[in-house]
Amino acid sequence: MTLNASLAETMNAMGAQAAMAARELGRATTEQKNNALIAAAQNLRAQTEALLTANRLDMDIAKEAGLNNARLDRIALDAERVEGIAKALEDVAALPDPVGDVMARWNRPNGLDISRVRVPLGVIGVIYESRPNVTADAAALCLKSGNAVILRGSSEIQNSAKAVAACFDVALEGVGLPKTCVQLVPTPDREAVGMMLAGLEGTIDVIVPRGGKSLVERVQNDARVPVFSHLDGICHTYIHASADIEMAKDITLNAKLRRTGICGATETLLVDRQCAETHLKPLIMALLDEGCEVRGDEDVAGMDDRIVKATAQDWDTEYLDSIISVKLIEGVEDAISHIAVHGSGHTEAIIAEDASAAEAYLDGVDSAIVMHNASTQFADGGEFGMGAEIGIATGRFHARGPVGLEQLTTFKYQVRGSGQTRPR
Amino acid sequence: MTLNASLAETMNAMGAQAAMAARELGRATTEQKNNALIAAAQNLRAQTEALLTANRLDMDIAKEAGLNNARLDRIALDAERVEGIAKALEDVAALPDPVGDVMARWNRPNGLDISRVRVPLGVIGVIYESRPNVTADAAALCLKSGNAVILRGSSEIQNSAKAVAACFDVALEGVGLPKTCVQLVPTPDREAVGMMLAGLEGTIDVIVPRGGKSLVERVQNDARVPVFSHLDGICHTYIHASADIEMAKDITLNAKLRRTGICGATETLLVDRQCAETHLKPLIMALLDEGCEVRGDEDVAGMDDRIVKATAQDWDTEYLDSIISVKLIEGVEDAISHIAVHGSGHTEAIIAEDASAAEAYLDGVDSAIVMHNASTQFADGGEFGMGAEIGIATGRFHARGPVGLEQLTTFKYQVRGSGQTRPR
Repeated sequence: MTLNASLAETMNAMGAQAAMAARELGRATTEQKNNALIAAAQNLRAQTEALLTANRLDMDIAKEAGLNNARLDRIALDAERVEGIAKALEDVAALPDPVGDVMARWNRPNGLDISRVRVPLGVIGVIYESRPNVTADAAALCLKSGNAVILRGSSEIQNSAKAVAACFDVALEGVGLPKTCVQLVPTPDREAVGMMLAGLEGTIDVIVPRGGKSLVERVQNDARVPVFSHLDGICHTYIHASADIEMAKDITLNAKLRRTGICGATETLLVDRQCAETHLKPLIMALLDEGCEVRGDEDVAGMDDRIVKATAQDWDTEYLDSIISVKLIEGVEDAISHIAVHGSGHTEAIIAEDASAAEAYLDGVDSAIVMHNASTQFADGGEFGMGAEIGIATGRFHARGPVGLEQLTTFKYQVRGSGQTRPR
Repeated sequence: MTLNASLAETMNAMGAQAAMAARELGRATTEQKNNALIAAAQNLRAQTEALLTANRLDMDIAKEAGLNNARLDRIALDAERVEGIAKALEDVAALPDPVGDVMARWNRPNGLDISRVRVPLGVIGVIYESRPNVTADAAALCLKSGNAVILRGSSEIQNSAKAVAACFDVALEGVGLPKTCVQLVPTPDREAVGMMLAGLEGTIDVIVPRGGKSLVERVQNDARVPVFSHLDGICHTYIHASADIEMAKDITLNAKLRRTGICGATETLLVDRQCAETHLKPLIMALLDEGCEVRGDEDVAGMDDRIVKATAQDWDTEYLDSIISVKLIEGVEDAISHIAVHGSGHTEAIIAEDASAAEAYLDGVDSAIVMHNASTQFADGGEFGMGAEIGIATGRFHARGPVGLEQLTTFKYQVRGSGQTRPR
């Protein structure tokens, strides 16, 4: 009880500090923010040895705890990875500053001049798992977009995260900004996460979880503040009867197999019954030849011995693996309906030469991203030209799709008058 | 228990119907939606007698319950008010349709053509108090912005609301849209509100409360889905030392007294100490002369016997009455700090001839609306040129400031390609 009371005090104090820092940071110049990022990058490079020492501490603990190689690899830093982290900070410094952008401006008949101007969100809480680089990446995106950040990395990277975060302290103070713009939760205590999800007495404006599904699920269920996240990426690629078969093959293989573990990977292939003869077989053979497991509906399963019969559950499953479900469909509207029921609102594609079918799909599918003749694996802030992203969101509000610098801002109205009063 | 189970069933069925209706409505043409609005207006006019009969029923019950005149007036309809409701529907029909607007469009070096397009939010739950016209106003704004709506009026207007909502049924069916686009909760049961706040099994996307502070407070505290609302409108007008005294007087009187009961009314006047001699006295005298109670800080209170001494609580109070708190301030930064602590993020104004002071204030005040040389009473969707508003929101996300048609939409990305796959 006493421990928790003291933790709550620490955490709430961090929240209060962040809120104060956010007010200063929100009015910082672009130059100040860029200089802080560049200085942090320099500090990271200069502190490479210290970073690697801290990381070895984390690695030793992780090895003793018996973590598997994939998890160890996520924790591990080396000189090259440190350079990558530093370079990423410089890349964010080079991006345009969204704060202060005039999104719209208009005049009223009474002479009032109204503009809608981008401002930071305020304080962002980032809860992440075992990649130390997220410490720097998330801090950089928040800093550039004028937001104070409270970072909470998993206990597995406590030492590495501390060493990375320390590189921001000096950098911030060097440009005259409070070092509390970037704060790292100093304890591996799991209750700290619950406190952040409750909003730290109203100081946290949004939570961004970065990690596996169980983390995102907990955050979505327990957060009392808005969350930018997606739980599932059950992405669909739909092959319309008018699809060019070579393009359909290229895109399907890429959408499914380029990387199977990312949220934009296609999980379900929908194929028009009308082109079952011409398109379905070559597509499935190509997938099977590449070693992809195919789970088909009844019609599809009969085509080849290697095809597994899909169960009802398959249409709602994000495999994140070399597995695809395949279903015959009665046309665009049927595809839209299937996606409305089974999709996760992330990214869906149609492959079609028929422009009106493509437009019907682009209009009718209610997902954050809808594509025509392109691979669902393009669902990425970098590929969208946003420079960097803190994640992909499938909520309907505010941040939808890739969450880059712009999405980490909100707006306010500035109204310029010359003495106008409102008629009674 | 059985009653609640059956209520839950009814409510959840409404949610499911609304979600299905939203999918159709989201793809309706502007013409369809406008025709439905115009037909609903015609129905309202044709059904005036039936509406007034239903309203008399509500009025009889309300009188028996001993409601005061102000509340009775809110409930009451007459032929003129019915015509006003019908006319408001035609006004919404005349507004531009935000759905399908291309908010941004750009090309990527690989030829991908990306556009960000406005789409409806989905299903909106509107919880309102005793004004029957909100039934039609809210339904119209939701319908025009492509959103299905579930309306829940207070028990005091059950009969009036039913009669108004019925006018939408035929209108919707007449244009080939499901009448479930506009649904009215058919029971005065208070538990229905709780169920809506819980989201009706994930079918409600946003809740909009329309009513007094206790309603908004309950909604904000209990809602498990996003809420577009504001709790307080503690608006400030700040008189900079460079202010033109005549303008300062006009605006202050208007900002405070034009209507004292609206959320954009100024509650606190901040005056630069530098111009206490020249500006403060005439401003206070003008307020006192108009019958406004003035509650001043120590310096201010000494100026006139009629001035009440402000307590700490005054700086955090929304009077919604002919009362104003007045405080001396040490300049723009002090004003910004005072507002950061005591403001409610709604609307603040600066009166100044000094342009750089005005810009510092416009940048530094973190409220939904910040004004220069204009009355805070302009905080209104109509005054902003949005045509109509469903309310004013002070959240940091999505809808901030007046919530008009545009704010009732979100967006999706449409990506048009020519066979692009993502390099490995």
